[in-house]
Parts: sequence; C-alpha cells; structure tokens
Amino acid sequence: MSERFAARRIAIIGLGLIGGSLARALRRHAAVDEIVGCVHHTSDIPLARELGLADRVTTSVAQAAAGAEIVVVAVGVDAIGAVCSQMRDVLGADAIVTDVGSTKTSVITDVRAALSTQQFRRFVPGHPISGTENSGLRASVDGLFEGKRTLITPLPETCDSAVRRVEQLWRTIGACVTRMQPTHHDKVLAATSHLPHLLAFALVDTLAEMAQRTEIFSYAAGGFSDFTRIASSDPALWTRIMRANGDAVLAALDSYMATLHNLRQALQNHEDGTITASFTRAKQARDEFANRAGTQRNKK
Amino acid sequence: MSERFAARRIAIIGLGLIGGSLARALRRHAAVDEIVGCVHHTSDIPLARELGLADRVTTSVAQAAAGAEIVVVAVGVDAIGAVCSQMRDVLGADAIVTDVGSTKTSVITDVRAALSTQQFRRFVPGHPISGTENSGLRASVDGLFEGKRTLITPLPETCDSAVRRVEQLWRTIGACVTRMQPTHHDKVLAATSHLPHLLAFALVDTLAEMAQRTEIFSYAAGGFSDFTRIASSDPALWTRIMRANGDAVLAALDSYMATLHNLRQALQNHEDGTITASFTRAKQARDEFANRAGTQRNKK
Repeated sequence: MSERFAARRIAIIGLGLIGGSLARALRRHAAVDEIVGCVHHTSDIPLARELGLADRVTTSVAQAAAGAEIVVVAVGVDAIGAVCSQMRDVLGADAIVTDVGSTKTSVITDVRAALSTQQFRRFVPGHPISGTENSGLRASVDGLFEGKRTLITPLPETCDSAVRRVEQLWRTIGACVTRMQPTHHDKVLAATSHLPHLLAFALVDTLAEMAQRTEIFSYAAGGFSDFTRIASSDPALWTRIMRANGDAVLAALDSYMATLHNLRQALQNHEDGTITASFTRAKQARDEFANRAGTQRNKK
Repeated sequence: MSERFAARRIAIIGLGLIGGSLARALRRHAAVDEIVGCVHHTSDIPLARELGLADRVTTSVAQAAAGAEIVVVAVGVDAIGAVCSQMRDVLGADAIVTDVGSTKTSVITDVRAALSTQQFRRFVPGHPISGTENSGLRASVDGLFEGKRTLITPLPETCDSAVRRVEQLWRTIGACVTRMQPTHHDKVLAATSHLPHLLAFALVDTLAEMAQRTEIFSYAAGGFSDFTRIASSDPALWTRIMRANGDAVLAALDSYMATLHNLRQALQNHEDGTITASFTRAKQARDEFANRAGTQRNKK
C-alpha cells in the first residue's frame, strides 16, 4: 500500500483549483512522465502552458484521454458525466477514470450512464477534502493536498486494483486516504461543507440587502472575515454542488433551521439558559475539532 | 486631535481579552504612569501580576477607581452597570468612565441608572471592534487594537472633552476611532458580529447532535474551521451580548431566516437561477469587503 505511485501518462480534465493543484503536486513528486491537460476554452491554453500545469494542453477531452493510464476528471460536478461520454470511445482497456467532485452519488449515477459497464468498473469516485475560496487556472497552488484527506467511495463492482492505484496516487502527493460509502460521503459533506457554504452565502446576501450595507462591511472585524470567507467561492460551482447533493443538503438545512428557530424563541422569551446550553455544546464540539485539527497540522 | 494621550493613573476593571490587551497596549505605548487592575476573583491576582498586566491588582472596584483619571470598564455587558454603582462614591470630579462593551444602548441605560447625572456626563460609551475567540486573563495579547476600529457612541449630554480624551487614548494605541449613534451601533454590530456568532454556535450545535458527530468533525476541512472559529467563543459572555442586544439581533435573525427559507424553496424546486443569483450577490459583497480589509491590513 505504501509503494510510490508512478505513471507514464495522466490526463487531467480541468486545470482549475483542484485539477491544476493536482498537476503541480504530481510534478513536484515526479510521479508521472507526462501530464496532458484539458481546458474548456481555447483561450485558457496559453495560461495553462505559462503556469506549467501540463506538458500538453488541449480542449479535446478525447485527445487528452487517449493513451492515458489514468484520467482525472476535475470539472464541476454536473459536467463529469458529459466529460466521461466524450472519452468513452478512446479509453484504453486498462485505463482508470477517477474524479474529484464534491458530491458522489450524483456523479456515480452520471458516470454509470456515460461509460460502458467495463469502463465503469474502472471508475474510482474520489473527493480530495481540500480547497480554497478561489477558482480558475490561477487558483492552483502547491501543496494543496499535503496532510489533507481524500475520500474514495468505490462501489461493490469497482475493480479493486483500480481503487488501490488511485489511493496510491493521492498518498504519494501527501493526502490521507479514507474509503467511504457514497451516500455516507454525501451526508457528511452536506453537514461540514455544503451547508456551511449555503449559510455563509445566505448571510452575506442578507447583509448586502440591508440599508446600512456599506457601513456594515466597514465595521466588520476578523471574526466576520473568517466566518464569511467561503462566501467568496464560485457561485455557479456551488449552485451545482447544492443541486447535486440536494437531498442531503435539505436534510441538514432543516436540522439547522430547527436549531435557529429554537434559539430565536429562547432569545425572544429571555430563556438565557437555553441559549447558553446550545452555545456551550457548540463551543465544546468546536474546541475538540480545533484541537484535533491542530494536532494534524503539527504532524505535517 | 492627534496629540498623544498620557495619563497618570488609569483603572481597568476586568483584565480579560479586551481589558488585559488594553493594559498591554497602554504600557507598550508608555501612555500611563500607573495601571490599577481589578479582577473578579482573588485567585486571579497572582496571574494578573505574573502577566504584568497592571502595577496594582485588586478585587475591589472602588479601590481601583479611586484616584483614577480614567476608569475603563472591561467586563461582560450585563455587569457594566453594577460595576459603575460600585465606583459611584469614589470617582473623582474630573474622572472619566468608559467601557468596551459589545452593545451600547443597554449599557447606556444601565450606566445612567448607576452613576450620578454629573458622573454620567463624563461616561463615554465605547467599543473596540477587535477580539479573538479566546477569553480570560491569558487571552490578552499585544497589538490587539492596532489598525482596528474603535466605535465611540456619545450621547448629546456627554461632555465633549471626555469624549475627545477617550478617542485620544484609542488613537494613541493604534486604533481608528469613529463616532456613531448608540442605536445605529447596535444594528450594525447585530449584523456583523452578534448574528454571525449566533449562526456559528447554532451550526456546530446542530452538527454535534447528529449521529455522525465524530465523523463529521473528522472530515471537516479548512473552510469549516474558519467558518466555525467564532463558535469557540465564551458561551456565557455571548449569551449576555445576545440578550443585551436582543431586538437588533432578532431583527437581523429574521432577515437571515427569510433568506434561508427562500434558498430552501429554490433548492427543493430546482430553481438554480435563484440560488446562483443569491450566491453571486454574496460573493460580490464578500470580495469587496475582503479587498477593503486587505487594503487596511497592508496599511498597518
């Protein structure tokens, strides 16, 4: 399991925050002989070259995927199925396809429809839990996956050697790999990532509508800056994630709104004990999380 | 206005995050000859001395306030009135009282009832917009107010020379001072600070109740850490702030819940355009805020 990953040719479809940072990491760890990158617009080709993200850059998914040992699909969750359709006719018999999408059940459904049964057995659904609020080719950074988790959500029919090879890839560039059921992944990520993004966007949108808009933002401090950072994320990309994981996000949102409703009642009725109890449970859980995260960071 | 602040003796009631950091800043800028600190528990006296937060430390508000040119009340918003009652009989005729509370109208009401009319004219309501999620004597840090805003919310009857002296104090330790109406302060702070704290506490409490609690926190990443940082704040202190600014917090919370409700409907009905429009307005406002905050940081 700890053997180093190496490949002759990898194709990365989409060279944005995740795809571009993956390209940088593979180069840095000298894990591949050749990276073929695929971008959406011809106009992105010169920048991808300038940033040194790939040895060859094309706008054709089929051209990028042909002859690749592994194809990493690093596009928006709603486009992964369409991208897979475009490589169906050119994928080598041993080629592995994997993705980096933030939702897994919707992606699996789409990819199953896009690939042949045989190809789908070599599709390894994956999700590196790392990112920033930035997007696009210029958002790619070095070391994005170091010490971070990558979740792999294989199906019963997924070829085990393909799963192990993708896991080895992520471990080689410094990620901690965990296997998980796709539906479980979607519930956990709805809670820790998708819902928080929705809440942050909703807060800044609410404040932006207020009469004191300019002033409100002038007097906001560090706590506000941290709390709203994820509201600087890409709106279209996050709409698609919310949509793709709609059921799990709605369930988490309903739990959250119930908590807010209870706190609202407690505040209106001056039930300070209820408020303090909720805040205390939250602080305890958050401090535990911060301690664990701090320990992980120090291990890096 | 740009004259440097200097005083012979300042009393600071409460040596926690704000009071302790103020003591550090006054020392660093050599702005006072003597700082008298007041702590709640006798057991805190050795630590306050060890940290060098004050020249003298007492648990008696009256002893601390007697003979001080300026008394800074740096205790929880619900205790400011009671603290002022305890100094009523010892305050010098020229003494200025000021506070650092996160809410202003409730504090003004309490202090008006606690001090004589003459003393109240020399009470300058203030609020440094800076802090961290930590609290207690050990939470005090150097440079906490440098480049940050302090809001001063004088009343029509407040003595202008007292206001100017308090403003001078904050400017001398590096803060940018702005005057504001107390009710306006409370609305703006409800939106940028009190509501975000409520939302962060509510999120972590909601997640902590979920069956996947341990896992949820294991798979949370950097965005989650930033988003929930303020949920590590002191639960009792924040309950009191919510309570003290209840009306403004409720109004902001209702606007927020309306936004959430609309987003929920849009998600359920697959109205992606509504979601993207809300997220886009939020990103635009958040990016503007971040650019301004970045500019401010670089000026430091």
